[in-house]
Amino acid sequence: MSARHPRVLRMSSLFVRTLREDPADAEVPSHRLLVRAGYIRRAAPGIYTWLPLGLRVLRRIEGIVREEMDAIGAQELSFPALLPREPYEATNRWTEYGDGIFRLKDRKDGDYLLGPTHEEMFTLVVKDLYSSYKDLPLSIYQIQTKYRDEARPRAGLLRGREFTMKDSYSFDVDDAGLEESYQQHRDAYVRIFDRLGFEYVVVRATSGAMGGSRSEEFLAKAEVGEDTYVRCTACDYAANVEAVEVRAPAPVSYDAAPAAHAEQTPGTPTIESLVTHLNEAFPRSDRPWVAADTLKNVLVLLRHPTGEREALAIGVPGDREVDLKRLEGQLEPIEVEPMDEAALKEHPALVKGYIGPGGIAAAGIRYLVDPRVVEGTAWVTGADVEGSHVLDLVAGRDFTPDGTIEAAEVRDGDACPRCDEGTLESARGIEMGHIFQLGRKYAEALDLKVLDENGKLVTVTMGSYGIGCTRAVAAIAEGTLDDIGLCWPRNVAPADVHVVAAGKDEAVFAAADRIALELAEQGVEVLYDDRTGKVSPGVKFKDAELIGVPTIVVVGKALAESGTVEIKDRRTGERTEVPADHVVDRLVGLVSAG
Amino acid sequence: MSARHPRVLRMSSLFVRTLREDPADAEVPSHRLLVRAGYIRRAAPGIYTWLPLGLRVLRRIEGIVREEMDAIGAQELSFPALLPREPYEATNRWTEYGDGIFRLKDRKDGDYLLGPTHEEMFTLVVKDLYSSYKDLPLSIYQIQTKYRDEARPRAGLLRGREFTMKDSYSFDVDDAGLEESYQQHRDAYVRIFDRLGFEYVVVRATSGAMGGSRSEEFLAKAEVGEDTYVRCTACDYAANVEAVEVRAPAPVSYDAAPAAHAEQTPGTPTIESLVTHLNEAFPRSDRPWVAADTLKNVLVLLRHPTGEREALAIGVPGDREVDLKRLEGQLEPIEVEPMDEAALKEHPALVKGYIGPGGIAAAGIRYLVDPRVVEGTAWVTGADVEGSHVLDLVAGRDFTPDGTIEAAEVRDGDACPRCDEGTLESARGIEMGHIFQLGRKYAEALDLKVLDENGKLVTVTMGSYGIGCTRAVAAIAEGTLDDIGLCWPRNVAPADVHVVAAGKDEAVFAAADRIALELAEQGVEVLYDDRTGKVSPGVKFKDAELIGVPTIVVVGKALAESGTVEIKDRRTGERTEVPADHVVDRLVGLVSAG
Repeated sequence: MSARHPRVLRMSSLFVRTLREDPADAEVPSHRLLVRAGYIRRAAPGIYTWLPLGLRVLRRIEGIVREEMDAIGAQELSFPALLPREPYEATNRWTEYGDGIFRLKDRKDGDYLLGPTHEEMFTLVVKDLYSSYKDLPLSIYQIQTKYRDEARPRAGLLRGREFTMKDSYSFDVDDAGLEESYQQHRDAYVRIFDRLGFEYVVVRATSGAMGGSRSEEFLAKAEVGEDTYVRCTACDYAANVEAVEVRAPAPVSYDAAPAAHAEQTPGTPTIESLVTHLNEAFPRSDRPWVAADTLKNVLVLLRHPTGEREALAIGVPGDREVDLKRLEGQLEPIEVEPMDEAALKEHPALVKGYIGPGGIAAAGIRYLVDPRVVEGTAWVTGADVEGSHVLDLVAGRDFTPDGTIEAAEVRDGDACPRCDEGTLESARGIEMGHIFQLGRKYAEALDLKVLDENGKLVTVTMGSYGIGCTRAVAAIAEGTLDDIGLCWPRNVAPADVHVVAAGKDEAVFAAADRIALELAEQGVEVLYDDRTGKVSPGVKFKDAELIGVPTIVVVGKALAESGTVEIKDRRTGERTEVPADHVVDRLVGLVSAG
Repeated sequence: MSARHPRVLRMSSLFVRTLREDPADAEVPSHRLLVRAGYIRRAAPGIYTWLPLGLRVLRRIEGIVREEMDAIGAQELSFPALLPREPYEATNRWTEYGDGIFRLKDRKDGDYLLGPTHEEMFTLVVKDLYSSYKDLPLSIYQIQTKYRDEARPRAGLLRGREFTMKDSYSFDVDDAGLEESYQQHRDAYVRIFDRLGFEYVVVRATSGAMGGSRSEEFLAKAEVGEDTYVRCTACDYAANVEAVEVRAPAPVSYDAAPAAHAEQTPGTPTIESLVTHLNEAFPRSDRPWVAADTLKNVLVLLRHPTGEREALAIGVPGDREVDLKRLEGQLEPIEVEPMDEAALKEHPALVKGYIGPGGIAAAGIRYLVDPRVVEGTAWVTGADVEGSHVLDLVAGRDFTPDGTIEAAEVRDGDACPRCDEGTLESARGIEMGHIFQLGRKYAEALDLKVLDENGKLVTVTMGSYGIGCTRAVAAIAEGTLDDIGLCWPRNVAPADVHVVAAGKDEAVFAAADRIALELAEQGVEVLYDDRTGKVSPGVKFKDAELIGVPTIVVVGKALAESGTVEIKDRRTGERTEVPADHVVDRLVGLVSAG
């Protein structure tokens, strides 16, 4: 609600056209409806034009973000999108980003990129202006257009190639300062996402390509989201599935363990066939063999940003698959792909279906295992010979992996890594915000130091905090729409009230005109369907439902019959008859209440 | 003045550092001061980072522009900056822009550009949404980042490679509608530039690469400007020098004119030597020969955007040079360069210093002449033989050029093309706004048609209206600065009042704190120099002068002595002693008065 623009948006002249048909390329409901309701139009894959209604929603979101950033003393500035190569060279990201960024040359053959994120620029501007611990802490931010050359732009605004982000950075002289700056931003983010008015969850996250330590994501709950997160049924643990850390069991003593022994297990290249064979050929008295007793070794190919390729072996308990996305989450910016048969054949020591730690070591391949593979645990695994497995192979005695990695799939029902009671359950979400403690990675690469209290140069520590503003439009739409259209939370809707003149006679239009104007004068933002001619009330109702302004006022037949108009709540569908003379006061009250 | 952000900007924490030294690369005063006062920083040639103070000025300018656009019913939308090649191919601008735009490829080898202007996108979005004359007139606009790969980015923000523009377009069904939309925009522009608070002039302009007819520019008066304009001393004629149209004299009867005759004029390759020789060898009884009696033929090379090269001959009265910028203004997007001796030698019919219409025709070169060369006028010009000129060569009788062109230099004292009394005087300016009637060029190229009242398809006619927002920051700075710093007009200043705590004792800071806070609570935007420690009052005064907030309040020694503080007008230097208790009321009044 704002008194600054006492302008009524009239449907008769508003630059909008609603569509009855879904656009052919729209994959998700929010995308379909944002196009159909005339909020956005596609200009190129992953690149959108913002029509007036869409721009209003975007600006309201940006306004809320800006207010809360200003409230914690963060200062707004603005970097260019077209950036020189050099700073990104200094941090190696010019290379690390691989195909993921847009690169270009100017007329003098200079190298430029379209900024995907601005860590380097923020770091350099602080280095340029500041030099003393007295200047810190500092938080600075921008709301600005960013670019990524996504391999698969999808879902409309959810994964675009040109998009708007708020990105802020904190600069502190020590870790305690960073922790405080991080917490301030976290609190501001909670206020922002609360004000945006949709369901979200804060989860632990990996920090991916950014480096750094503590990291959390703000996810909108959504089936169409690209992120999977888990929550504990008992405690408040919540994490992006990529960031779940399996609680490693304590090491086991293997003093009494039998020696490892290779056995013939013909025709058992899969875990299922192996377990069946073990129970038939080597039955155990105390309990049957299960998949979790086996150690499955999976080979993948890592593609480093430099183009270099490397084979990697991952060992996981046989009841779990390797989750490539989780694996990639640990290894970013390295990309991962399964190793195909041809690549496997380059290593004669690896026997498909019977790969064991010995063959991996013989092939000279790095070997990382699931955290559950702790010292002293005994496993059945491949013997590197066709039709043969080793039993009672003890970690730390018979083989020593190069380290552990979180790559095994996380499943509903898994034990919570934090508490002893709960189990994990998963859901999908859209990443809308990400906050993390970058630490000194960029400050070191770009030599950002200040003098401390003792006159000694110390490297600054940084936090990084992002919100996808254009993505938020789609995520909020996705989280609030229903089967008849968009259904905006009040704080981000393109207008507060949608007045519909539903009739042909002049009295209806005169009353609707008056209501729209009086509302606007009182600071209510009004979308007014004043269309005449062939536009029927039915079409107007459908458009109002599609556009999704939270409160709809229908001025129609009841006006002549009983002097009333109807207030309709877009979300609940609830209708209230109100005397036409009282409707403005009622609506002003409703809108102020939020 | 605004009550929305009752926040005091404190110098102790504001992200700013003022510099005592001029930056090495700054060519013009506004650039030097914007960097020194901490408004902007260079990120790459022609590409700038906006620090908090600079961003505040930019946002205020954008806010004024937005208000006035909204006030004429223009609707805001937003196009991407990263654009696909195809629409620019359809209008041939992908080629025409030559090296002037940034081009890039995405990972799928698709061609993209960074939008230099958005005519194509605006045209296409209207084609997408609208189809009837009933939908028109329509004016839509955006405030958005644009890119040009300038050959010589210069003068800081004045000619940048990444910059922000407001660009709007009007769409009408007929010429009368376009005229009305144009006038509405023109009126809005006058209001905008009046509110920005600096000296500007509205001049006729050429429409350059954009095509179209009626066209005017809004220029800031500035010595450092790239544009030269002229004004009439008598009437209100004003034009960019590129757009000055010489009033062609009426054709002269040549019935009584003597026949043309070639004469020996040895050693007369220049106009000066020729005139001297004419007066010695062929004296006239009625008046001496002057340079204006001769016809000078100048050869240039045109470089078409396709890469094709073409020779062109320009004939101008011998008392004037060819103005390459004026010539280019007529020929855009073609680039022009002087023809060098080597290129001249490729045409044996052209004899350097003695080129005449005959040689030009023999060489098969297009020949355009100044509008003063009307039918029946007699000239002395080259005879295409070393050391020889033709006298009494009559236009329309002895030679017929291929057309006329406005390429001769315009000089102070030239007759006004409109009135009979005045003469022209020139000055320099910075182009801040440009409005023009595009007509149907883009609508035709992209097939934008609507049904008219009779159900017939008609091509829409368009107007195009731009304001350089980032450039405006520099232009206003340039037009208002003085020898001690920036000196902002009130409506665009980064704050309304700059409060300086000039002293060491606590009472001074307590009073300054109170004044700053009370002002902010009353909606005055306050920059408050609350720095303690080693920052002396002298440094604070210098910074306040450099930063250029229009009103400075000094809380200093007078507080203890007489209970007063000093209000200083940054522009006039005028100082007023005011009781500390009254200063807030005084300032609120001052700021509200504007």
